[in-house]
Amino acid sequence: MTATLPLHAPQTQFASVDGCLQVGGIAVTRLAQRVGSTPFYAYDRALLSGRVAFLRANMPSTLGLHYSIKANPMPALVQHMAALVDGLDVASAGELKVALDTGMQPERISFAGPGKRATELSQAIAAGACVHIESFREIDAVARMGDALGVAPRLALRINPDFELKSSGMRMGGGAKPFGIDAEQAPAALRRIAALGMDCPGLHIFSGSQSLKAEAIMEAQTRTFELAVRLAGEAGQRLRRLNLGGGFGIPYFPGEAALALAPIGAHLAEQMEALARVSPDTCCAIELGRYLVGEAGVYVARVIERKVSRGQTFLVTDGGLHHHLAASGNFGQVIRKNYPVVIGNRMDESERETVSVVGPLCTPLDLLAERMALPRAEEGDLVVLFQSGAYGLTASPAAFLSHPAALEVLV
Amino acid sequence: MTATLPLHAPQTQFASVDGCLQVGGIAVTRLAQRVGSTPFYAYDRALLSGRVAFLRANMPSTLGLHYSIKANPMPALVQHMAALVDGLDVASAGELKVALDTGMQPERISFAGPGKRATELSQAIAAGACVHIESFREIDAVARMGDALGVAPRLALRINPDFELKSSGMRMGGGAKPFGIDAEQAPAALRRIAALGMDCPGLHIFSGSQSLKAEAIMEAQTRTFELAVRLAGEAGQRLRRLNLGGGFGIPYFPGEAALALAPIGAHLAEQMEALARVSPDTCCAIELGRYLVGEAGVYVARVIERKVSRGQTFLVTDGGLHHHLAASGNFGQVIRKNYPVVIGNRMDESERETVSVVGPLCTPLDLLAERMALPRAEEGDLVVLFQSGAYGLTASPAAFLSHPAALEVLV
Repeated sequence: MTATLPLHAPQTQFASVDGCLQVGGIAVTRLAQRVGSTPFYAYDRALLSGRVAFLRANMPSTLGLHYSIKANPMPALVQHMAALVDGLDVASAGELKVALDTGMQPERISFAGPGKRATELSQAIAAGACVHIESFREIDAVARMGDALGVAPRLALRINPDFELKSSGMRMGGGAKPFGIDAEQAPAALRRIAALGMDCPGLHIFSGSQSLKAEAIMEAQTRTFELAVRLAGEAGQRLRRLNLGGGFGIPYFPGEAALALAPIGAHLAEQMEALARVSPDTCCAIELGRYLVGEAGVYVARVIERKVSRGQTFLVTDGGLHHHLAASGNFGQVIRKNYPVVIGNRMDESERETVSVVGPLCTPLDLLAERMALPRAEEGDLVVLFQSGAYGLTASPAAFLSHPAALEVLV
Repeated sequence: MTATLPLHAPQTQFASVDGCLQVGGIAVTRLAQRVGSTPFYAYDRALLSGRVAFLRANMPSTLGLHYSIKANPMPALVQHMAALVDGLDVASAGELKVALDTGMQPERISFAGPGKRATELSQAIAAGACVHIESFREIDAVARMGDALGVAPRLALRINPDFELKSSGMRMGGGAKPFGIDAEQAPAALRRIAALGMDCPGLHIFSGSQSLKAEAIMEAQTRTFELAVRLAGEAGQRLRRLNLGGGFGIPYFPGEAALALAPIGAHLAEQMEALARVSPDTCCAIELGRYLVGEAGVYVARVIERKVSRGQTFLVTDGGLHHHLAASGNFGQVIRKNYPVVIGNRMDESERETVSVVGPLCTPLDLLAERMALPRAEEGDLVVLFQSGAYGLTASPAAFLSHPAALEVLV
């Protein structure tokens, strides 16, 4: 009897040449020499561009595509993405600066997030970016600041919908939430905005993220269109812009498979056509972070030591949870699972041993791979973690135990 | 029928004056003005000193006390601790620099950790610090580097014991581990060190951390003494230094109570007397991080907004998981529980409401308190998280969503 264990989705986006993984067309061993030290993150320009092209090919041509900087705010990467997408979404004044530095037109930059500080709101208005209003407090604040600055604020209203994206990694809509204005309060919010003499042409409805189920995403999108039309109708307002949120996931763990994009595109086309019949001048957009950049990035660490303790083999590397918290299983996961991991300079070796990959930190949490089947690795070899282009370095406690920072390169 | 919910251990270390929490003898509202911005961490010098004194009073007078910098490496705090303790434990070259900068004698600084890089080992030997050997690779490496540097390396052998600290937050001994040399390999390791002409006068046996059960700690200590005597005997070596590890926990969550220190001290005294009969010149030490500094620190964030969504009240603050990952429940916890939290400027108010405290990040993970009973807070009020002196800022993903860094002050 053989039990078939679930496998990781194949990481075919990266080629191998002579047994060595290629990132951005460069052997990872040579890339490590070029970077000068390990660990590092490397993001592949061609894969980023290819991903956007693949998405565009599957989505309606009139659908706007925004990049959510929070997934990866590395300035060179954001600059690359800015040339490919129709807008940038930011979640703080820090991200706003990165977005503006790319030269993206301010009106194509949107700023969402609960708890925006007064200085952040004021900066966004001064920049001419679109502020996604998430509370009644923010309505009054932007009106006041717009007056003070002599600038008419660009606004959209972020809605906490009365439904959620099912089977998603992060449910961000439905129920009581700190994000956005509850759908049932939206008409009052739109009236308040109008009463203060401001224009709010857009709605932003974000129901969840990291879903691998096309059906769940399509269902949430259907409900998003319904809700938007209903809210605009209740407020007696034309709906000029609709941000449908994101939710497109990527496969991280064994047994997970890539999201089926074609049915989502076809469904969106139908929904957008239906919307156009009642609201002909609505521009629709989706905002994606992880889906656009996650699969284009790797995290590379070097084996410092092969260590056998009581029959179990450990590869102790110079990288760990201080650079890649999510891969250690400590960023929102309930049960730790392994990311896809390879030995980047031993891609052709078919013999496998069971090893755990750990980092240099004095904590059992510092685990990059637990009992995985990998080629036998030696000191100096390069451990490569795939699916590391999003929520990697900036989602990690870089100062933990005061180890050197990881570098990031775009290749 | 009334169900009694478990409560947080009282945080009596901080006084309140006129309804305002005092940190370092300063009202937290004034401290916020002095710091100039929120959020911030504040560590209370008097509490740090008092904690060391309390510990000394309960422990045998000849027991050495080391501070593990990893718990909180803020330089001013480490400087304060350096004057109070007998040694500093570091886990990286970065921490070694902080330790040396205090003026602590190098031989009182010990460097432990799996996966020490060659440069780190070399730096530690050059500094004259004590390297805690964790593998056979490190033995050969320090011998080679000592020769190259013309410096006799100071060494101790870190043992992965054949037991673990039961009911601890982090089990770090027993079974297969990347930490230290398996106890059964220790005699061979000591022989190897001697064969290379080096002296290794100490053993370091660390079996776990964050335990609130005195019995479990005492049991682990008994076994630590037994193991040390046995290993020294097997290797035919005098045991001159014994680092017993740490393991002393602090109460974070409802229902947890402070560790009973007196029985541990009495038990250690007995064990040390017994050891002195067979090994009269052994110096014993414990290493503590969290226990020394955790209760002396608070994290302070300001309420940006009071928000009601579908009947649930949220206090949206300018602080969140990017500064305090552990309080959000995302640093090693399987089930999220609330840290002790108060409204620092409303300490006298007895009326309570049930609220959740969240941060400014666009993720449901950004939760500092879930449905806690707190006085009614308004915009501008200060939310204070206790038990935040250890594994706070440096254990958090500071760059996540590019919000401003939290400041740290020692008062």
